[in-house]
Amino acid sequence: MASNNLVLHFLNDSRAETIVWLVEELGVDYEIKFYQRSGSLLAPKELKNIHPLGKSPVITHDGNTIAESGAIIAYLLRTFDTSESGPRFSTFKDEKSRIQNDYFEHYAEGSLMPILVNKLVFSKFPQMAPWYVRPVIAGFADQVRASWLDKQLATHLQMIDGELKKSSTGWFCNSEEPTGADFSMFFPLFKLAKGRGGALEAPESIKTWVAKAMDRPANVRAHQRIKDAEEAQAVANPSESSKL
Amino acid sequence: MASNNLVLHFLNDSRAETIVWLVEELGVDYEIKFYQRSGSLLAPKELKNIHPLGKSPVITHDGNTIAESGAIIAYLLRTFDTSESGPRFSTFKDEKSRIQNDYFEHYAEGSLMPILVNKLVFSKFPQMAPWYVRPVIAGFADQVRASWLDKQLATHLQMIDGELKKSSTGWFCNSEEPTGADFSMFFPLFKLAKGRGGALEAPESIKTWVAKAMDRPANVRAHQRIKDAEEAQAVANPSESSKL
Repeated sequence: MASNNLVLHFLNDSRAETIVWLVEELGVDYEIKFYQRSGSLLAPKELKNIHPLGKSPVITHDGNTIAESGAIIAYLLRTFDTSESGPRFSTFKDEKSRIQNDYFEHYAEGSLMPILVNKLVFSKFPQMAPWYVRPVIAGFADQVRASWLDKQLATHLQMIDGELKKSSTGWFCNSEEPTGADFSMFFPLFKLAKGRGGALEAPESIKTWVAKAMDRPANVRAHQRIKDAEEAQAVANPSESSKL
Repeated sequence: MASNNLVLHFLNDSRAETIVWLVEELGVDYEIKFYQRSGSLLAPKELKNIHPLGKSPVITHDGNTIAESGAIIAYLLRTFDTSESGPRFSTFKDEKSRIQNDYFEHYAEGSLMPILVNKLVFSKFPQMAPWYVRPVIAGFADQVRASWLDKQLATHLQMIDGELKKSSTGWFCNSEEPTGADFSMFFPLFKLAKGRGGALEAPESIKTWVAKAMDRPANVRAHQRIKDAEEAQAVANPSESSKL
């Protein structure tokens, strides 16, 4: 196993939650460095000291700084999914499963997340406009969401539902264990199961998949670690935490 | 070399241009199936018969249908970058270059393209609104672009510029030949060099990189193939082409 000087720069309510789940699955020692979003939901400037885009997740390990969820997942699997009996989370039954894995590893951030991010941003539009045009902006934002974002999202939910229904194991690539595809899809599907789709409810297959992912002992440990890190931060900065 | 029943489903003015460049570099036989955007710039419904999301690029090969630019690039390199003297486009000098490659393979679609897509979408907002609120919507869209998208884009341009300036070969990962990172970055950087950044001009390093990519004999061949496929389509559907 590679050395364990792994630091996860963790922003609350971010894709970093996925990375904690993955490192818990891999059984790697790691440290969480906790960052709190500001009132405007933006990441704090300190994250720019780690990586120029100032986003989370970012990991540092062995002198490397790695950003972008998909690249972090690829790095962690390549570096740590190396048990003597062979990789647990990077083995595929056949070429089709391997292709499926690569697809969802890129699809999660390349296609699905931009829709969810835009849905969130559009919901903030009225607040961003001067008060005297707010009703106009709100009406327009609703129209664009319905005609553009929700229409796209409905197509995507149907596609994901179809793929999950084909799986015999419940995971995206028909493997016994989750693979890169599942780790990549965790954050958007978790958000969809929690209602981020708005009027578009997540199909049962997605809710079942999220429950299965959340039930993993590694994910239970991950959420405890996140809670502990958040509480430690709150104690360190009592004035900050009182604003939450 | 794997068999050559490779079909590229090509939508005009899309990320599919990158894939034609890549298959020309790999020296693989392939067929282009050409699709024309409708007046509203949407992809035609026929693409939904190939893949449920109805987007391009999509490739079919050996009974597999593969969507998502990053996954297509990964598949093509894994399948065809297999010359006897070793892979040409998938070799890295060291671990840092490998990490850099994975980063840009995910960053291109996961972070950079969503900004460019949103810039395009926001520019269409006024046309989407009823005429009597168009000035309000146009003003708001300009404000959001300036305060949100252009601010983000400026940070991204600076990061990309910094990375390109560090390269001794001109390619993202310091390799002698372009790697997956370069293929992944081609479409957004091409658009930025052509002015998609609006008031934010692309730095010289990006323009130089785009010129270097465009000068590759494989890219010159790719653009000829695209032109030929477009002309063949125009001859087949003269009434469609007259609308262009």
